[in-house]
Amino acid sequence: MDVDSTVNAIKSMEIRGAGRIARAGASALADFAGSYEGDDSKGFMIDLMAAKAKILDSRPTAVSLWNGVHATLKGVEGCGSVEDAKRLIIANAERFNEGSVNAVKTIGEIGAKRIQDGDVILTHCNSSAALSVIKTAFRQGKKFKVYATESRPWRQGILTVNDLAKEGVDITLIIDSAVRSVMKNVTKVFVGADTITSHGTLVNKIGTSQLALAANEARVQFYVCSETYKFSPMTLFGDMVTIEERDHEEVAKAGELDPRVKIFNPVFDSTPSKYIDGIITEIGLISPGSVYHVMTSQLGDDIFKFIGD
Amino acid sequence: MDVDSTVNAIKSMEIRGAGRIARAGASALADFAGSYEGDDSKGFMIDLMAAKAKILDSRPTAVSLWNGVHATLKGVEGCGSVEDAKRLIIANAERFNEGSVNAVKTIGEIGAKRIQDGDVILTHCNSSAALSVIKTAFRQGKKFKVYATESRPWRQGILTVNDLAKEGVDITLIIDSAVRSVMKNVTKVFVGADTITSHGTLVNKIGTSQLALAANEARVQFYVCSETYKFSPMTLFGDMVTIEERDHEEVAKAGELDPRVKIFNPVFDSTPSKYIDGIITEIGLISPGSVYHVMTSQLGDDIFKFIGD
Amino acid sequence: MDVDSTVNAIKSMEIRGAGRIARAGASALADFAGSYEGDDSKGFMIDLMAAKAKILDSRPTAVSLWNGVHATLKGVEGCGSVEDAKRLIIANAERFNEGSVNAVKTIGEIGAKRIQDGDVILTHCNSSAALSVIKTAFRQGKKFKVYATESRPWRQGILTVNDLAKEGVDITLIIDSAVRSVMKNVTKVFVGADTITSHGTLVNKIGTSQLALAANEARVQFYVCSETYKFSPMTLFGDMVTIEERDHEEVAKAGELDPRVKIFNPVFDSTPSKYIDGIITEIGLISPGSVYHVMTSQLGDDIFKFIGD
Amino acid sequence: MDVDSTVNAIKSMEIRGAGRIARAGASALADFAGSYEGDDSKGFMIDLMAAKAKILDSRPTAVSLWNGVHATLKGVEGCGSVEDAKRLIIANAERFNEGSVNAVKTIGEIGAKRIQDGDVILTHCNSSAALSVIKTAFRQGKKFKVYATESRPWRQGILTVNDLAKEGVDITLIIDSAVRSVMKNVTKVFVGADTITSHGTLVNKIGTSQLALAANEARVQFYVCSETYKFSPMTLFGDMVTIEERDHEEVAKAGELDPRVKIFNPVFDSTPSKYIDGIITEIGLISPGSVYHVMTSQLGDDIFKFIGD
Amino acid sequence: MDVDSTVNAIKSMEIRGAGRIARAGASALADFAGSYEGDDSKGFMIDLMAAKAKILDSRPTAVSLWNGVHATLKGVEGCGSVEDAKRLIIANAERFNEGSVNAVKTIGEIGAKRIQDGDVILTHCNSSAALSVIKTAFRQGKKFKVYATESRPWRQGILTVNDLAKEGVDITLIIDSAVRSVMKNVTKVFVGADTITSHGTLVNKIGTSQLALAANEARVQFYVCSETYKFSPMTLFGDMVTIEERDHEEVAKAGELDPRVKIFNPVFDSTPSKYIDGIITEIGLISPGSVYHVMTSQLGDDIFKFIGD
Amino acid sequence: MDVDSTVNAIKSMEIRGAGRIARAGASALADFAGSYEGDDSKGFMIDLMAAKAKILDSRPTAVSLWNGVHATLKGVEGCGSVEDAKRLIIANAERFNEGSVNAVKTIGEIGAKRIQDGDVILTHCNSSAALSVIKTAFRQGKKFKVYATESRPWRQGILTVNDLAKEGVDITLIIDSAVRSVMKNVTKVFVGADTITSHGTLVNKIGTSQLALAANEARVQFYVCSETYKFSPMTLFGDMVTIEERDHEEVAKAGELDPRVKIFNPVFDSTPSKYIDGIITEIGLISPGSVYHVMTSQLGDDIFKFIGD
Repeated sequence: MDVDSTVNAIKSMEIRGAGRIARAGASALADFAGSYEGDDSKGFMIDLMAAKAKILDSRPTAVSLWNGVHATLKGVEGCGSVEDAKRLIIANAERFNEGSVNAVKTIGEIGAKRIQDGDVILTHCNSSAALSVIKTAFRQGKKFKVYATESRPWRQGILTVNDLAKEGVDITLIIDSAVRSVMKNVTKVFVGADTITSHGTLVNKIGTSQLALAANEARVQFYVCSETYKFSPMTLFGDMVTIEERDHEEVAKAGELDPRVKIFNPVFDSTPSKYIDGIITEIGLISPGSVYHVMTSQLGDDIFKFIGD
Repeated sequence: MDVDSTVNAIKSMEIRGAGRIARAGASALADFAGSYEGDDSKGFMIDLMAAKAKILDSRPTAVSLWNGVHATLKGVEGCGSVEDAKRLIIANAERFNEGSVNAVKTIGEIGAKRIQDGDVILTHCNSSAALSVIKTAFRQGKKFKVYATESRPWRQGILTVNDLAKEGVDITLIIDSAVRSVMKNVTKVFVGADTITSHGTLVNKIGTSQLALAANEARVQFYVCSETYKFSPMTLFGDMVTIEERDHEEVAKAGELDPRVKIFNPVFDSTPSKYIDGIITEIGLISPGSVYHVMTSQLGDDIFKFIGD
Repeated sequence: MDVDSTVNAIKSMEIRGAGRIARAGASALADFAGSYEGDDSKGFMIDLMAAKAKILDSRPTAVSLWNGVHATLKGVEGCGSVEDAKRLIIANAERFNEGSVNAVKTIGEIGAKRIQDGDVILTHCNSSAALSVIKTAFRQGKKFKVYATESRPWRQGILTVNDLAKEGVDITLIIDSAVRSVMKNVTKVFVGADTITSHGTLVNKIGTSQLALAANEARVQFYVCSETYKFSPMTLFGDMVTIEERDHEEVAKAGELDPRVKIFNPVFDSTPSKYIDGIITEIGLISPGSVYHVMTSQLGDDIFKFIGD
Repeated sequence: MDVDSTVNAIKSMEIRGAGRIARAGASALADFAGSYEGDDSKGFMIDLMAAKAKILDSRPTAVSLWNGVHATLKGVEGCGSVEDAKRLIIANAERFNEGSVNAVKTIGEIGAKRIQDGDVILTHCNSSAALSVIKTAFRQGKKFKVYATESRPWRQGILTVNDLAKEGVDITLIIDSAVRSVMKNVTKVFVGADTITSHGTLVNKIGTSQLALAANEARVQFYVCSETYKFSPMTLFGDMVTIEERDHEEVAKAGELDPRVKIFNPVFDSTPSKYIDGIITEIGLISPGSVYHVMTSQLGDDIFKFIGD
Repeated sequence: MDVDSTVNAIKSMEIRGAGRIARAGASALADFAGSYEGDDSKGFMIDLMAAKAKILDSRPTAVSLWNGVHATLKGVEGCGSVEDAKRLIIANAERFNEGSVNAVKTIGEIGAKRIQDGDVILTHCNSSAALSVIKTAFRQGKKFKVYATESRPWRQGILTVNDLAKEGVDITLIIDSAVRSVMKNVTKVFVGADTITSHGTLVNKIGTSQLALAANEARVQFYVCSETYKFSPMTLFGDMVTIEERDHEEVAKAGELDPRVKIFNPVFDSTPSKYIDGIITEIGLISPGSVYHVMTSQLGDDIFKFIGD
Repeated sequence: MDVDSTVNAIKSMEIRGAGRIARAGASALADFAGSYEGDDSKGFMIDLMAAKAKILDSRPTAVSLWNGVHATLKGVEGCGSVEDAKRLIIANAERFNEGSVNAVKTIGEIGAKRIQDGDVILTHCNSSAALSVIKTAFRQGKKFKVYATESRPWRQGILTVNDLAKEGVDITLIIDSAVRSVMKNVTKVFVGADTITSHGTLVNKIGTSQLALAANEARVQFYVCSETYKFSPMTLFGDMVTIEERDHEEVAKAGELDPRVKIFNPVFDSTPSKYIDGIITEIGLISPGSVYHVMTSQLGDDIFKFIGD
């Protein structure tokens, strides 16, 4: 798909989900490179930067899009000719997309090794990476039990428990307040990630930090399951991750409350790195202290200049 | 009301609530004493013990009933005559009932002194003692803000927020998962008690221990508001407080879930004493380490023998 | 000294210091009783209550005065005659005063047993009870080393180090910021108390809670040295201990700062009971959980009624 | 047995064990009182104090002996006649001895209520009170599992596991280093006590504080099983509990080591009260904050004067 | 400036401050390279190493000088000719110097993103990097409040508060002992760094570790603002950072104290990495776990060999 | 030694110890390369991979062997000719072997810098890297004291104390339960490593995590001494480190126990990274957050592909 169609599809929400948006951005740049005519290096770079800017603008807060685009452009400034640059861009896009498609599957394989017979697992909300870990382990024949939180207000826990029950997993739903109450029986926590910062903080569905705190208190291992394209290079530049507040009707319907009652309904919270035992990514199980290293490995040492764009 | 009517009214749930049950038990014993005819001490004691047993049997797990009955009988074994014993029982019952009626009001007055202009208070569920503290402070003209949890699954938080909004209190409802997220802005937590054990553990609505943990982590003061008739002498004898599990439909309706999904729905949880800054009772603000002393002051040094009954 | 002279002397600061004020109040009541003429019980009680009110009003925030006065009046309501009441008051005042005079000395003897050869002690500000512990141990020939903080802004640490140096104690002065830096070498902390609440919280010179936190982190024993007349019965009734703010010039002189700079200069801070290993009092080494018991032992079970005055 | 025989039997180790020594001391005083001839109060008191001193001297560090003797003499100074004093002493001794004999059994009954089907219990060394709890629960038909530490260097864990295996309890032996490794599976810890101080510190077999620390980290309940005659009134007066060092051959045989190697072999360690959830005594399950209250209840308000002897 | 003049200027304190010393060292090597005559590679390297040694000797404990010198020499051993080496050295020096000059400004821009309307910030001593963060945020129009510690004994806090007041920042001075007292109102801590070790420990002005401890207890974010040339490669080789003691007159004037009083006046303390949420550097916001990676990125994989020099 | 002989020697335990096994694997590949005849690149790679597989199979759980083999093969896929590949392999093997031989010595030199006069050191089990640190410091003339644990059940502490005593080190043996008891006097802990995971968890001799917990409680520095070939790349792929259980006779002899007694005897335990202050390796003192960076530096960015083999 060409750049403009991709931009429109992202804006109209036709293309959705962290992974798919990122791959669309990478593909659009490959399409741009593949169909580029002319061999003036300067002109090519100007057009390329314009295409890049358009794509990033289609969803400015999407960390994954930023990562897909910059992984695709990695090293392009050092190319001697337009031809070299086009080849590089197409190769980069392919490698990024392939890696991205396989990431959830690979995370499932890596994380499943952390699950053993007899485990009691707790998960929160509805993370495809965390579910991939649980389902992979289950398909390997491991015997364990899972608690899933309801995850008010959207109650995505309903999706999670139905999905796991369909697989045949021994699955129990609890309300969010029961987390500390069951934590004593839990052996491992697996949660997903919305964003991970350059200094190792996890931003994820509201309630995640409460799981982490209770896990830490009770000496339960706490794992984050996250594709590396959720690592936010913008945080390296100091950017705070914005924690959106959602519609109050999600918490209580209009007629239900005295009109003087207010509601606070944040969608995410932050978990400090000291409560995280490990991050399971498609490039392996790493420490929160290694996020900066992964960023520079994937985006090059000039990452900081990029961010300054 | 006589002993049999009282027993029936308690059994049929006509008389309900920790305080009212306790006072009914005390009054029934006073009625028994007042209407007793005969002056044989031995016979009196036998009949009295039978009345006591009947009353306790009407709701065997009610800590407040046990306390009301034993506070009424305190010292009766040392009486020289039936007349003395009758007088003592009637006086004891009056004193207990008066204290009990005033307890919530007194707790409100004591606790309100702990609230200051600018405070941000967090409460959980729907405790009349905790609400008494908040409302008393508000009526004194103090300026503060309150967060109340939804308290799934019954969502008693709805009662709490409506009650406080009616008063004019600045009140915000949050979901239970948002506790740690707001805790940084909170200055004091006030919760109620279902039961407090002889070694200072709090048993209260599910989610309370999570508030306590998050408060402790963030160095926020955590106060329990509790009438002393919720101190459980049975725990002195080692009894565990049973934590009931409730109807699963409270958490999710039947059609909503795949039939293989299980639900765990405990009604209470336990908060260790190290997370409790103080207990606000009608006899003052005390430490969890003082519970045993209050028990023996109220029920006499022979408390242990009573429990062994 | 009679009641009026005592009241004047306290108001004019002629009588100062927690202990001396308390004893003056007790003595004034004994003087009142000793010189009372008449034998009408009712009249006596009315006059007595008036005298009591006057004395308490001379320094309404002094916990020790409140304790001295109420210890002196303990049991007076149960007296059958004016003569009995007078005898009781005089005896109570004598016992209180004697206990009070000896308290610092007794605390020194008890606390000194906690010091051993080779100890490294840290103290803060200038507490006569804590110094009594240190000096008693030194006079017993024990070999140890003491660190004392400067205790800005008044720098009472200067008094402390000079006092201990005069004794011959091995004493080192540090600035307040160096507390955690030396804590690894410290074996025991001894501090004084301004007030101790009914639920075991210590209110003392600003910086005390920082010592406690650093001691807790480094697993160093933290002892409070306090006469029991510093236990505040008003806190039982919920009263917050007011933490006064002092003159800003204590922190920086007028010319020294840009006029837009503000200063915050609190005189005390609060240390939660979980950071306190023990309280050394003239009735022994106790837990913060035992404060309520000591209050009721000393002032009677009607303590709560008194406070409600 | 008369005073002199008792003293000899204690000194020669014929009478051993905290409980038996205490009862022997109480009985000797009862024997002294029962056989006393003469009715001069002053003379009686002088002889009595001499007998008391002799008995205490037979084992000056035995907390239980001190408690047995003082419980027996409680109130004797207020007696109007030698006859009254003799009656009181004999009655006190009987009550103390009866209570003491039953204490371990009562602790077993109270503690057993804390054990539930499915529990995994950890115990340390070989405490008869802790074993009474475990065995009572087992005889009640409860299904649970027990880990016992080896307890080097004496390896009293061997006694513990054999004793429990004989009962049929599901018992697993671990080395002392494996405590934290199994703690995640443990639900409750029960240990005994050598001594408990007035401010709630536990002194017990070396390694106990390590269990407490690991239990606290993993949010496992930690219970101390202790007869109240192990509460040390001497600590109220500030006395440190001496932690004896034992024979080095217990750790390594002579030939096994290079002669320059030193050995440090302490027999006890100290556990701070914040790591203790509750103390199970024959008068009920209490908080470490209640130790001072129990002491004064049992020995009278003049306890402090006694200690000053 | 040539090597000898630079060395003299550093030794005489004419050139001072971590950044300026580092840039002077880099420039001196560039000057050496620019003015070198001859094309014998071996001879060049010998002369270069001599120049390097002289420069490092001018201030052997300055981490920044070491970093400036080695960043300038990075890759020089791989150069094929003297000309190549000279070009590389000059380019390296320029890049280092430019980066260093801009570092404080860049840190200000990155850190300012972490500040939000309504924040309450605490800072310590007088760090230009931390002040750059605060001032940048203020100039961006953000509304927040700042507490600054006095920072005894030099009281650099006076400089800090005056500097910020001049800008118009809402600034409050507190004494060092009031840190924990205000921490509950604080939302973020920003401090500078003297040195950061290879394993992520912060060495900074005495009192910093106390701020970190109190921030950790109260769940307040703790940020270190540091140019990367303060990362100490010598610590990678195990070297301890020496913590200097300063003149005792800084703490108390001569006449003020009894001559037997000693003073301990360390200038820095150490903060462990677990208390640090993030390090704000000119290359971005990173975790303490990433320090080693930054070192090798900047100095090359042969960093360890350098240190072994 | 050729590949087959090496494989046999490893299988028969003739070659033992993490370092020696790793070097044997590297040397066997160098031998294979040196003696290879033929210049067909494809054929060479097939034969090489077969040799690699054989060697890894000789001890599939040895992390060091895996590291030695892959460090030797690093970059071989990019070689243009068989000759280049052979040269590379031989050079890689030499560098790895040299580094490995010197690693313990280098660790000793780095770690010794962390020891100062007056230190009190605690070590566990019998780690050659930790002993190298202690002995190097001792030979440098530093004055310190060492505690070593007995390390039941094998009691390798006996080896440790005899080894250090022979050197003349002031060495004291303690039982494993005495760790927390002595921790207050300890200034630094040095332990070895069996394996370190990609996310910074230490797997080492049972009891290590207990030392770490007690050190953390008492604010004592905890250092791990480990060659980098003990970093496990397999853990990057999610593999759990298997914690073997050993013969039960190690804990208690057959006749000693009732036959119903079970024994649990794990050989290792896991220490989370938050309890580790630093890891002392032959490439310097690093943070647990830097383990992933060291792995990729040593094995190349294609490390993850290798592991997937």
